[in-house]
Amino acid sequence: MKRISSFPEMVQHLAQADERKRLAVVCPYDEETVGAAQKALDNNFADLIMIGDERLSETLPSALVASPRVTIVNAATPDEAAATAVALVKEGKADILMKGLINTDNFLRAILNKEHGLLEPGKLLTHLSVAQAPAYPKLLFFSDVAVIPYPTLAQRVEMIKYDVATCRKFGIDSPKVALIHFTEKVNPKFPNSVDYTELIKMAGEGEFGDVEMAGPMDVKTACDHHSAAVKGLTSDVCGDADLLIFPNIESGNTFYKTITFFGKADIAGILQGPICPVILSSRSDSAESKFLSIALACLNA
Amino acid sequence: MKRISSFPEMVQHLAQADERKRLAVVCPYDEETVGAAQKALDNNFADLIMIGDERLSETLPSALVASPRVTIVNAATPDEAAATAVALVKEGKADILMKGLINTDNFLRAILNKEHGLLEPGKLLTHLSVAQAPAYPKLLFFSDVAVIPYPTLAQRVEMIKYDVATCRKFGIDSPKVALIHFTEKVNPKFPNSVDYTELIKMAGEGEFGDVEMAGPMDVKTACDHHSAAVKGLTSDVCGDADLLIFPNIESGNTFYKTITFFGKADIAGILQGPICPVILSSRSDSAESKFLSIALACLNA
Repeated sequence: MKRISSFPEMVQHLAQADERKRLAVVCPYDEETVGAAQKALDNNFADLIMIGDERLSETLPSALVASPRVTIVNAATPDEAAATAVALVKEGKADILMKGLINTDNFLRAILNKEHGLLEPGKLLTHLSVAQAPAYPKLLFFSDVAVIPYPTLAQRVEMIKYDVATCRKFGIDSPKVALIHFTEKVNPKFPNSVDYTELIKMAGEGEFGDVEMAGPMDVKTACDHHSAAVKGLTSDVCGDADLLIFPNIESGNTFYKTITFFGKADIAGILQGPICPVILSSRSDSAESKFLSIALACLNA
Repeated sequence: MKRISSFPEMVQHLAQADERKRLAVVCPYDEETVGAAQKALDNNFADLIMIGDERLSETLPSALVASPRVTIVNAATPDEAAATAVALVKEGKADILMKGLINTDNFLRAILNKEHGLLEPGKLLTHLSVAQAPAYPKLLFFSDVAVIPYPTLAQRVEMIKYDVATCRKFGIDSPKVALIHFTEKVNPKFPNSVDYTELIKMAGEGEFGDVEMAGPMDVKTACDHHSAAVKGLTSDVCGDADLLIFPNIESGNTFYKTITFFGKADIAGILQGPICPVILSSRSDSAESKFLSIALACLNA
């Protein structure tokens, strides 16, 4: 497939694919969530299942309610709405799950429920973000800004596998993976840098399929050719990374917040690991960001 | 004094102050370092002491060598150059120290030398950065992106005291200090968030003088009014921070690299703690960034 290098290309690809996904939205009571879902409907890549209480009739536009591609499901409480959505996925009646105005902990509890949830034993729940920033010529994927505070080596392996699989759905055949640290030096004082040596060895042995992996390196070395050149670094990953793996949640979250606010980036994000992609947007996300997250999930489902 | 809200205002303030500092530069063999020092000379806020080997005669412009405000000091090796510069500071003959083309470890060794160095017993060596970003209406101070990987509570206290003192030199009478985390929640699993509670208590008791301090909060909450409003946060610090204190070096370094590359920020940085400000610029810094760091050091000396 042709490589997808921007969000408009991602949306165009989905709109042309003529393959709609069924999006179950838990408590879509806010304008941004409803607007994002409506736009996915209008772009013809999602059908909607809107789950919630009587507020649905107030917040959903009448055209949406009347659409044959929109299903309304009543649920008295947020917890009931989440459980209903999870059950629809398990029954094969929904392809993607999205959080609306429900507390994150309650929403995740339904997904992680051992008996009825969506995460199979041994699977890792991890967050993937995708940014389109004016300073960068292509999409930039990165993990984990929201779920795993301090990944173990095994968790980093799983995270990279999920992320690389998503990169391939964007037509990136050999993703360039940068393992982020604050310096290029491996030092036992910083266990993540030692993990990185192991990950690169595994990548060389084909554990992740066709990828180029390098690190430790800092964000600028990963994304800026000039910085890499001044340092005399010659890896193809330097200055041209597709995927950034952050050492911990503090640095990942700082990158997310800084590239969006100071770097004016558009952003999409999904949870990976459950049997379907999950959109865990937050209240401060714009309708556009929620829409891009739906598109990312649809491409990934 | 009038508050300094941008780098041009900082430079103008120094140029008008008619109070020159003596800048000792260790191994100024690269164009960026020489250009930055020359510009500080031209702006009339620094006299120069250039310390190094025979390469000085090759790299220093003849006009610089001929200036009565420039002193050339010969040193056969980088270590000798660093030791000479440190000795000049101790003898009261230099006000600021700057690193040129010498290995960072060697440079720091001279500063940290227990017998001859510049860090008095019990003092903390810590890094302060200042950014001017198009997305933000004023200068943004932050620590620590380079020296202390995981600060203890006592180290955070010292770091904040240094940083707040520097903010006051910019005419910021009551600096707004944001304690950065990936969420607003305090959680014993994340010891820095517990430290933050203690720091805010100390701030309330006047430990840091006139400051406003809040946290934990993420970078966007600290710098973006809209994000803070959506979350219902009402602290005056939210959306209007002057100083960001990062939980660890990975997040601090990520912020530094992201705000400069993706956020197109100009940046200055100094080491604080030694008996004089120290400029520890790196090879990939531009001449402009090195110049701004000299100005920051001069304002601080």
